[in-house]
Amino acid sequence: MVMCLFKKGKKYVYMFGEAGTSPIRGSKDLGKDILGGKGKNLAEMVKLGLPIPMGFTITTETCDIYYKNNKVYPQQVIDEIEKELSRLEKIMGKKLGDAEDPLLVSVRSGAADSMPGMMDTVLNLGLNDQAVEGLIKKTNNPRFVRDSYRRFLQMFGNVVMEVPHHDFEEALQKIKNAKNVKLDTELGVEDLKEVVKSYKAVIQKATGKMFPNDGREQLKMAIDAVFNSWNNDRAIVYRKLNDIRGLLGTAVNIQSMVFGNMGDTSGTGVCFTRNPSTGENKFYGEFLMNAQGEDVVAGIRTPLEIAELDKVMPDCYKELVKIYQNLEKHYKDMQDMEFTIQEGKLYILQTRNGKRTAAAAVKMAVDMVAEGLIDEKTGVLRVKPEQLDALLHKQINPTAKKTAELITKGLPASPGAAVGQIVFTAQAAHDQHEEWKKVVLVRTETSPEDIVGMVASQGILTARGGMTSHAAVVARGMGKCCVAGASEIAVDEHTKTLTIKWKTYKEGDIITLDGSTGEVFAGLLETMDPELSGDFATLMTRADKYRTLGIRTNADTQHDSEVARKFGAEGIWLCRTEHMFFAEDRIKAVREMILSEDVNGRKKALDKLLPFQKSDFIGIFTAMEGLPVTIRFLDPPLHEFLPQEEKDIVELARDMNVDLDALKKKIADLHEFNPMLGHRGCRLVITYPEIAEMQTKAIILAAIELKKQNKVVLPEIMIPLVWFKSELDFNLDIVHKVAKETMDAEGVQVEYKVGTMIEVPRGAITADKIAQTAEFFSFGTNDLTQMSLGFSRDDAGKFIKEYVVKNIFEKDPFQTLDQDGVGQLIKLAIGKGRKTRPNIKLGICGEHGGDPASIEFCHKEGLNYVSCSPFRVPIARLAAAHAALKNS
Amino acid sequence: MVMCLFKKGKKYVYMFGEAGTSPIRGSKDLGKDILGGKGKNLAEMVKLGLPIPMGFTITTETCDIYYKNNKVYPQQVIDEIEKELSRLEKIMGKKLGDAEDPLLVSVRSGAADSMPGMMDTVLNLGLNDQAVEGLIKKTNNPRFVRDSYRRFLQMFGNVVMEVPHHDFEEALQKIKNAKNVKLDTELGVEDLKEVVKSYKAVIQKATGKMFPNDGREQLKMAIDAVFNSWNNDRAIVYRKLNDIRGLLGTAVNIQSMVFGNMGDTSGTGVCFTRNPSTGENKFYGEFLMNAQGEDVVAGIRTPLEIAELDKVMPDCYKELVKIYQNLEKHYKDMQDMEFTIQEGKLYILQTRNGKRTAAAAVKMAVDMVAEGLIDEKTGVLRVKPEQLDALLHKQINPTAKKTAELITKGLPASPGAAVGQIVFTAQAAHDQHEEWKKVVLVRTETSPEDIVGMVASQGILTARGGMTSHAAVVARGMGKCCVAGASEIAVDEHTKTLTIKWKTYKEGDIITLDGSTGEVFAGLLETMDPELSGDFATLMTRADKYRTLGIRTNADTQHDSEVARKFGAEGIWLCRTEHMFFAEDRIKAVREMILSEDVNGRKKALDKLLPFQKSDFIGIFTAMEGLPVTIRFLDPPLHEFLPQEEKDIVELARDMNVDLDALKKKIADLHEFNPMLGHRGCRLVITYPEIAEMQTKAIILAAIELKKQNKVVLPEIMIPLVWFKSELDFNLDIVHKVAKETMDAEGVQVEYKVGTMIEVPRGAITADKIAQTAEFFSFGTNDLTQMSLGFSRDDAGKFIKEYVVKNIFEKDPFQTLDQDGVGQLIKLAIGKGRKTRPNIKLGICGEHGGDPASIEFCHKEGLNYVSCSPFRVPIARLAAAHAALKNS
Repeated sequence: MVMCLFKKGKKYVYMFGEAGTSPIRGSKDLGKDILGGKGKNLAEMVKLGLPIPMGFTITTETCDIYYKNNKVYPQQVIDEIEKELSRLEKIMGKKLGDAEDPLLVSVRSGAADSMPGMMDTVLNLGLNDQAVEGLIKKTNNPRFVRDSYRRFLQMFGNVVMEVPHHDFEEALQKIKNAKNVKLDTELGVEDLKEVVKSYKAVIQKATGKMFPNDGREQLKMAIDAVFNSWNNDRAIVYRKLNDIRGLLGTAVNIQSMVFGNMGDTSGTGVCFTRNPSTGENKFYGEFLMNAQGEDVVAGIRTPLEIAELDKVMPDCYKELVKIYQNLEKHYKDMQDMEFTIQEGKLYILQTRNGKRTAAAAVKMAVDMVAEGLIDEKTGVLRVKPEQLDALLHKQINPTAKKTAELITKGLPASPGAAVGQIVFTAQAAHDQHEEWKKVVLVRTETSPEDIVGMVASQGILTARGGMTSHAAVVARGMGKCCVAGASEIAVDEHTKTLTIKWKTYKEGDIITLDGSTGEVFAGLLETMDPELSGDFATLMTRADKYRTLGIRTNADTQHDSEVARKFGAEGIWLCRTEHMFFAEDRIKAVREMILSEDVNGRKKALDKLLPFQKSDFIGIFTAMEGLPVTIRFLDPPLHEFLPQEEKDIVELARDMNVDLDALKKKIADLHEFNPMLGHRGCRLVITYPEIAEMQTKAIILAAIELKKQNKVVLPEIMIPLVWFKSELDFNLDIVHKVAKETMDAEGVQVEYKVGTMIEVPRGAITADKIAQTAEFFSFGTNDLTQMSLGFSRDDAGKFIKEYVVKNIFEKDPFQTLDQDGVGQLIKLAIGKGRKTRPNIKLGICGEHGGDPASIEFCHKEGLNYVSCSPFRVPIARLAAAHAALKNS
Repeated sequence: MVMCLFKKGKKYVYMFGEAGTSPIRGSKDLGKDILGGKGKNLAEMVKLGLPIPMGFTITTETCDIYYKNNKVYPQQVIDEIEKELSRLEKIMGKKLGDAEDPLLVSVRSGAADSMPGMMDTVLNLGLNDQAVEGLIKKTNNPRFVRDSYRRFLQMFGNVVMEVPHHDFEEALQKIKNAKNVKLDTELGVEDLKEVVKSYKAVIQKATGKMFPNDGREQLKMAIDAVFNSWNNDRAIVYRKLNDIRGLLGTAVNIQSMVFGNMGDTSGTGVCFTRNPSTGENKFYGEFLMNAQGEDVVAGIRTPLEIAELDKVMPDCYKELVKIYQNLEKHYKDMQDMEFTIQEGKLYILQTRNGKRTAAAAVKMAVDMVAEGLIDEKTGVLRVKPEQLDALLHKQINPTAKKTAELITKGLPASPGAAVGQIVFTAQAAHDQHEEWKKVVLVRTETSPEDIVGMVASQGILTARGGMTSHAAVVARGMGKCCVAGASEIAVDEHTKTLTIKWKTYKEGDIITLDGSTGEVFAGLLETMDPELSGDFATLMTRADKYRTLGIRTNADTQHDSEVARKFGAEGIWLCRTEHMFFAEDRIKAVREMILSEDVNGRKKALDKLLPFQKSDFIGIFTAMEGLPVTIRFLDPPLHEFLPQEEKDIVELARDMNVDLDALKKKIADLHEFNPMLGHRGCRLVITYPEIAEMQTKAIILAAIELKKQNKVVLPEIMIPLVWFKSELDFNLDIVHKVAKETMDAEGVQVEYKVGTMIEVPRGAITADKIAQTAEFFSFGTNDLTQMSLGFSRDDAGKFIKEYVVKNIFEKDPFQTLDQDGVGQLIKLAIGKGRKTRPNIKLGICGEHGGDPASIEFCHKEGLNYVSCSPFRVPIARLAAAHAALKNS
């Protein structure tokens, strides 16, 4: 069993730090897939001739076999470990557990992808009762050694032998009480001896086993513990969250310990080759003399800036500078390094590509190209598209955040920051906005009726709904900050209060939302505007050079169109017309239409809407002059335009001068059990052709008016929710007839295209037929996902988390396109559509149009466009460039 | 243009009734596709040597060209008509419009499929002022001739020249007033002359054209009229309703007139070779002497039974008997014939396969096999599966219906008859049923809470909802009569009244429903029980012999299982478990489970349900002993189990002793915008694994109990709504774990299978993966249709009619499987499923499982089973046999 998993002649343990032991298999350097990131970097630094404490790496393949083989590895691995360990001892001239000059090692995890803090680490391994004596001899520092031993016992006991932390704390506290001291540091050498004894007892009591005195036994147990930590809950969740997949497991790095706390010529530090916050090309970091790594982090002593090292240990500093320059040149990226100076000798413990802020990422990507360190393509790939999001919205000043009162947390539904007085209704938002007040709209959930209030607000906070709830989707579309599904809050619209646990906030109280984190703060926090620097523009221009996908936007207003164009949108691919119907000056006519008993009444009401629609389109066409604008006909079910609350209904009946009971009956008649699957989209036109007539007329009239002004207008009319070709044709007949009549009447001809949304699974399945009359398809991946998965995004919030937690699916399919399911339908439709009409224009307009993974799918499947909300256009541009570069 | 549509050398007009003129093209007899049904039968009767008035047929191809060519046909057709007409005149020795011995002809439509009454007919064509004189000379009956002329003018004027009927009525009334007579028959010969004059004036006034005196002109116009009538509204609707497709058009038959009203040796009649009501093999029909065809129908004189003809005209009768026997032998089917005797000479005007009742169809199909007239396969094909429906339910006595008061009409949602007192709530239905009263439940619409009331009722009447609304689906499942979507009725549950237009009915009033027609009658009408005669059983046995598809049933109770088994079900393919949860003794525990705050509370409530579930399954397994039973886990969203009305909520809070506000909040939390796409099916199990645990345990315990009694139980566990393999596996892990634990605890092993519903489009798309762990797929075509089409059946009723009327789709996709859309997904899933697991069992369990066209699809795609409600099992068995015979 074991043997068949092993390849004969394969090697599982590789030494680093000794010349001639570079990990090579065949004629190829082993990569981080086999050595892990840390192991690979150590090996590489050795090759670069850097001062690395010697050690060896057990490969990720070993971890894989360990799991496949029921957590047992065969003799070959044990033999190899022993062989390398002996060699290490020999070269170092020290022995594990030696009473004269003991070898101490660290045992660290290290997967191919960095998973900081997720897996286990053991330091100072090799200490035992004998080795302690040896180390005291070498260091002449009994307190440090005894303290190290007690720390090692605790770390080993906890990490390797799984004794609860708490047991050690308790034992320690007992001794501190007995000695009548408060701080650990007040314990003397003899006290520490007592602690060690007590810790050993703790271990034995909790596990029934003795603490292993033998260093080799310790090492074996620690290696097992690291392998086991690959699959602890924390690590699994981290990999899921960070989308780390397809790895063999973790490698284990055993490295001889060096000590920064052996006196004034010792020290330790962390440094970055450039500033990770700003991107500035200047050595950055901090250090402490006579200290261990954990002291830097613990914050008891204040570390010094790295430049200070030049004064303290000028030789070490100069060496460090040379090393960092080399490393950056070698890795061609900003490095995050750890170093230790032991008695005047510098050791590099680790290097890796450094994490950085979005602003820093952009600056470095541009600077490094200018410096000739990387080429343009690499520069473009260096910035993650998602990162840009942080640069495109208002943000809360991080300093202000530190002292603010966090009152609750919801979902980070739409990024940015919002500060304002609480209001509880769309009407109040609108009214107070008119009085120049800044407001935050707080609702249990939003509905299309709230649009006017959302527009008037700085941000939106809802108690219910997920990342793709109405509030979230509309807010993202507006580029407006939104925190959704803050389930701790209770909203009472009548008393105008918002209760969080025991605290109540009322209308007019000021709150601050952070839409990028979901945080809600009491009071006013300082915010900062986004600054799209020159580097940002440079990066975008380069992205455009490499991408092949067209990027359009979803925009319903002239303002949004202008914003999107500024962000680089190459036209509109989805202009929803329903939002236009909610404005105060239109909703009345819309309701009149709905409540009409016959076609003449509806036409009369629609005639009132016509000038509004026309002026909407004139605005949008003007903003997008010369670029194509795809306008989708009315989509939602009509009941969305009628009030649902008793009091609003009464008011409407009075306003419209209609019988209250008749109105209620109409509203009841329009009620749908499953509005998502109801009378909406082009189905409305089958029943009420006059709606399509009006919308066509408005589009054509607007186009004619601009053409008369010699402006270039490229309207495209899109029919939503098509599932039968006959249904599309019914709509198109109306479009062509009315367009012709309108152009004939005006004596001006304008060109327009017609196409359809593919958002119902049947539409995708029969795309070959639909393409006979549709000049373009837009994949409405929101609805297509909902219908293909049978999964309403309005309701999903309640149980989708369980699906992610329980690993039912890898990612929320409303955030990233479900390529195995929905993606297959899209592929089918692309194939069928192109078969009928080879030059058919294809794009997507769902929320996925702004998601980098989904954009890569669109690129690979050869779509012409992706479309997203204005504020995601730069992200989409960069993601499209990545997709092109990765798949070229 | 015209010429290119015509094939050179093709013939468009064919004579019949003359030896040697049989319509042959190449070496093949022309079929009814070219000659129409009537034309083909006339030609065939001529070949059989029967006495047929001579004439000629213009082919359906001509009609096709007529339409393709903008309603103009070319000279060739006109020439052929003239040629055949001249030949007809020559052979008959009469001429159209002749003043001595005029030829009169009938001009009739006749498509390949019979469309009785839908298209136009003109009789007595050729009459004009001269021919009238000639005919008087020949018949010596001036009154008959003048009356015929006036009738011809009216018919020609109306049918051909499109003058409204009313105009003629008015003119006639004027003369009757002037003559001071009441009945047409009181008008004298001179009066009729006046009528003719007046009718001509009517035509000229209405059309601006003169009535064409020329017979050839009349003929040409009449032929045009018949061709035009192919596409009148009536004919289009008829073809749609009867699913008549792919025809070229109608043929036109021009036949010389014979007269049954030329004295006492003349007569006319209609006869059937067997009794079309009962199927009895006995000559059946009626006749009138000295009468025209319309007199038989008009009912002024009472026709005589056909046997009486033997006394009046024994030679003619003997000839007629010989002919009918010949015709039945020739066509191998019951014939519906029209004959006329003109002065002692018998003419057969028409023969066709006779329409028949369901009972007659079954009897004939069995009798004719016994007589050796047809073979078994033909016998099986002779009965339409849908027809059986009428035999499987209670029916209203047709005689009783004639005098009953029809108060409204809804959709014929579930066949059968129901008589009972009106009740308005499920509770009232239940209570009164307990008191042995027969009730009809009347609701605006039904919901799952009404199940108990539906069970207790004779039938259900709803104001809203379509053929696939909750009421309709559940009622069909129960085999219970239902009239749904009776939109004229207004139900007021509070005042317990039902208003139809101006009339109000109250609780306790008796009504009668006809679920087969949708009719609702006031008062008690007599009903008749279904009788499944020996012939029925014979037919079913033969159907089973030829079908290859397995037929299972959808049954949720022991009773339904027993009924289904009697009807021939070979097991259960869908046993829904949710209906079991609504019974009075369980719903409380269900609600307790839903309202529990934690898993322990839920488990406690589920423990109470376990014995009920177990006993349910024992009952069903017992009824289906030796046959497989597929049990589907709980499917609906949990909110369906909680009340929605304020008063019921208050009551529940009191009953359950929970806080009213907390209960309301829970209900609000469970509310879903689109429950169809919500938290249901196996999604419930992801959140509440304990539900699946309880259901598994109940199934396994029931199976064990019966196994201990040496009964053969074949349980199959079906997971609903699967769209990710991981989701299925999560469910299956629970099933296998609990099954093993239960069997181990009981010390008895039982076998079971596990599988899944494919009802979410994504499930179909990823069927290859799902088949890795599913042993069977059941295509839930109801949900699959809803999701693939994005079309909620609960909401579809409001607009689906428009879709049918406007030809958007050919058939209601909830009644007949949408083969181009949903069918393609099923095909995909079949291919993928079989690729992974070649012996995977496949079946469908949606409403389509009882629809013959859908069953044929299932047969062709090689499914193993179809499943339908118990009362449709015989229909499915016969449809499966048809499918096998048609596709062998």
